Amino acid sequence: MTTRDQRLAQAAQALDCPMDVEIAPGGSYRPVVRDERMLYVSGQLPRLNGVMASLGPVAPASAAPAPGTATLEQARRAARVSALRSLMLVQRTLGSLEPVQRICRMKVYVHCTSDFTQHSEVADGASELLVEVLGDIGLPARSAIGVAQLPKNASVEVELTASVHFAL
Amino acid sequence: MTTRDQRLAQAAQALDCPMDVEIAPGGSYRPVVRDERMLYVSGQLPRLNGVMASLGPVAPASAAPAPGTATLEQARRAARVSALRSLMLVQRTLGSLEPVQRICRMKVYVHCTSDFTQHSEVADGASELLVEVLGDIGLPARSAIGVAQLPKNASVEVELTASVHFAL
Amino acid sequence: MTTRDQRLAQAAQALDCPMDVEIAPGGSYRPVVRDERMLYVSGQLPRLNGVMASLGPVAPASAAPAPGTATLEQARRAARVSALRSLMLVQRTLGSLEPVQRICRMKVYVHCTSDFTQHSEVADGASELLVEVLGDIGLPARSAIGVAQLPKNASVEVELTASVHFAL
Repeated sequence: MTTRDQRLAQAAQALDCPMDVEIAPGGSYRPVVRDERMLYVSGQLPRLNGVMASLGPVAPASAAPAPGTATLEQARRAARVSALRSLMLVQRTLGSLEPVQRICRMKVYVHCTSDFTQHSEVADGASELLVEVLGDIGLPARSAIGVAQLPKNASVEVELTASVHFAL
Repeated sequence: MTTRDQRLAQAAQALDCPMDVEIAPGGSYRPVVRDERMLYVSGQLPRLNGVMASLGPVAPASAAPAPGTATLEQARRAARVSALRSLMLVQRTLGSLEPVQRICRMKVYVHCTSDFTQHSEVADGASELLVEVLGDIGLPARSAIGVAQLPKNASVEVELTASVHFAL
Repeated sequence: MTTRDQRLAQAAQALDCPMDVEIAPGGSYRPVVRDERMLYVSGQLPRLNGVMASLGPVAPASAAPAPGTATLEQARRAARVSALRSLMLVQRTLGSLEPVQRICRMKVYVHCTSDFTQHSEVADGASELLVEVLGDIGLPARSAIGVAQLPKNASVEVELTASVHFAL
């Protein structure tokens, strides 16, 4: 097991996520498509052991949060879970994270109320996991976007595109 | 005409869409950009013979649907239409679908009400057309996202990225 | 300075944007990731000299616009600013715009009210800048999407993917 794979296992353990967790597609698509050097990972919801880590739109901090909304901290942790699942899928595709050349692009879709504007802070939860596991090459180009809804009422969805070293 | 091209023609016929239908960009962009082995297809609205196949936000099934909303079944068919248009553009770019190596990535943006959560079921309408026409290599990595609005009040927008065999 | 770089400087001057303006990431990500021939540019908000060029959701033209909303013209200019920043980042990465082979894909996320449907007209503001600066190879495949919110309450966010000539 390489250092990257060890760090992924540590990150999974810290989130109470077994390394052999089932990550099944929720419809007619592939979890990952590999095309030559590129890996296209499907949008990952923050499911953890069968339960969504955060549900509902993220709302700004408030003395009286509306029922069914999520906090910035919940959404940020959910983004971390989605990033973990994405890297687990990359690892399963390649057998290890060692062949990864870099994370090229990450999109973080944040399901939010119309007055929530801290999408970057939510997305940082995903970025931080990538850097913890992969180091410098894990820091991607990124877009954070606020959306009206996400599948299954999830609070976030993360989509990664990664590249692999030439020799592989 | 290859098998893939025949199946595209059959799928078009089943939707009453002539193979020479005009697919003009609705603004300042290209329908498809080819860069070496990659084809980047612009987001396709579900226009069929000049009429949008589904308009308005998709809403959950209800005894009394709100006026101007679309049903899951309408949106799913619209996603199929958008996928058809995307493959027609690929075919026009390459002269045939035969050189396609695989569909790498598909995004399905679903214009929906805030209580609609079956985005994956809508997106399956697009995936199914890709697999019917292209077989196994048509099944992409996918992200389904719920959005507040789409151009022209369309219910769905589909965006494909495909690759072409090396020799071509 | 090449013709492309001169035209970028002219476009920046017309928007009162100094060429050495700071374009710092608003979180844990890279402004641009280069992977072999591809450049992945992070989603750019329309910040101009520290001020957002357009804030709030874009609303249809109205005799009595709701407070806090933006007009089509404001959003269109904001899309132009986001595209300018994107090209400035490409230039800083490569030292010049000369090595750019083409703009492959652009996404324009338009923060809008639920009754706004002219996303393509907003996105044209970004396309026009790309073509002014880069000519024909600046015209990308494009998707325009209406979203519920964007980071910092910006009216638009633009995301570019570009390619570089082989030799470089």
